[in-house]
Amino acid sequence: MTTVALKADERIDQLYSKTIQIIQSPTVFSFSLDAVLLGAFAQVPKAAKTRTVDLCAGNGAVGLFVSSTTRGHITEVELQPRLADMAQRSIQLNDLDDQLSVLNVDLLTVTETIPKDSVDVVLCNPPYFKDQPASQKNPNPHLAIARHEITANLAQIMAVTSDLLKMNGKAYFVHRPERLDDLFRTMAQHRLAPKRLRFVHPKADREANMVLIEMIKDGKPNGVRVLPPVIVYQADGSYGEEVHQLLYGN
Amino acid sequence: MTTVALKADERIDQLYSKTIQIIQSPTVFSFSLDAVLLGAFAQVPKAAKTRTVDLCAGNGAVGLFVSSTTRGHITEVELQPRLADMAQRSIQLNDLDDQLSVLNVDLLTVTETIPKDSVDVVLCNPPYFKDQPASQKNPNPHLAIARHEITANLAQIMAVTSDLLKMNGKAYFVHRPERLDDLFRTMAQHRLAPKRLRFVHPKADREANMVLIEMIKDGKPNGVRVLPPVIVYQADGSYGEEVHQLLYGN
Repeated sequence: MTTVALKADERIDQLYSKTIQIIQSPTVFSFSLDAVLLGAFAQVPKAAKTRTVDLCAGNGAVGLFVSSTTRGHITEVELQPRLADMAQRSIQLNDLDDQLSVLNVDLLTVTETIPKDSVDVVLCNPPYFKDQPASQKNPNPHLAIARHEITANLAQIMAVTSDLLKMNGKAYFVHRPERLDDLFRTMAQHRLAPKRLRFVHPKADREANMVLIEMIKDGKPNGVRVLPPVIVYQADGSYGEEVHQLLYGN
Repeated sequence: MTTVALKADERIDQLYSKTIQIIQSPTVFSFSLDAVLLGAFAQVPKAAKTRTVDLCAGNGAVGLFVSSTTRGHITEVELQPRLADMAQRSIQLNDLDDQLSVLNVDLLTVTETIPKDSVDVVLCNPPYFKDQPASQKNPNPHLAIARHEITANLAQIMAVTSDLLKMNGKAYFVHRPERLDDLFRTMAQHRLAPKRLRFVHPKADREANMVLIEMIKDGKPNGVRVLPPVIVYQADGSYGEEVHQLLYGN
């Protein structure tokens, strides 16, 4: 494995179920269970010709997670230079320079670099919260941009997703259940048909705090499937079997 | 308890968790778990002034189920005379003539009888399937109308629901998850904001086959809550605790 330089506030985290190492920093951004679940939910075709784009890539976790399931190329699109640099070094750390690349651009301009209608799979773990004047934001701008719709809102991200995808290309998003109405509205506005939903509940008797969505460009309406829920923690506080498997590989 | 005449193909079913008896007929319509779950999901205010309307009432099961939770009046709206008559006789059977009434009209004309903006709660277990020329329908017209959108489609039912409801009035629907995109679209078109969703899975590891939805007229967007799932059957094939409680009361 290649050696890369870490900055003072960085550490390397390992996802045990894959053999991927990821540079993390609590002061700018850390991947969390959202990214792990999105990576496991996404179905990226194996073929080497498959083109995948990870929008709002952060430190590149989702793209790195899915890299072992495809021989195709994955482009990580990240606006913030510090995060794009972390993603780039994590790619080097895993000797995956041939398969992954980082595009340090604003996703709103990404079709200047990646042609429209050319992508098979879009992955996205977008900012969850609306950028409302009254909303409490993290004073750390790196974290505020990752969590709040400051630089791009959901409608804009859906528009870019639809622009990038080939007809019948698929997109995989993770988001918050309270935004389901916005998600369905913006999908409908941008030729994206919801195909599979999966809700993530912290415990079996708690409300969902995440939703995973598969959508297909120009897909047929009225074909939504709602998969069995992900239950993160068992009643005794230990991880549920599926999540334990994803995090620790056994 | 009042005695009522049963027709040849009718029987009386009891919902053990309430003390409600309902006239059923497999040849025209029988309530099923959908109606039981919708009745349990709905939150009808207790006050005597509460006005509740059950659209697509069938044999009146949902309205009868919720009648013990409110002192308000419940109107069962049912198009098919045979079903409306069954609902009327079930109301008599339970001595609930003071609290429930049946309106044997087409729901598309219901605002000729019930004023617009006058209703606190709408309940609806609508036909689940689109009326497409190619769709296989039950040759029994009673059952075909109950299952397929032959006499009213989802957009029309949402329009009537919105017309009937007061501002901030609530509607409770049960439907199929594959129609989620249609549900979100038609809610948005008719001033109905989704508030709570609950998915019903036959087993913990199976896809959902029903969704319960609470919506509020003129409610705020982006406030959707996804409740813990209903798991109907345990791994051993017996009813899950919650469903057993609903059906048998212990």
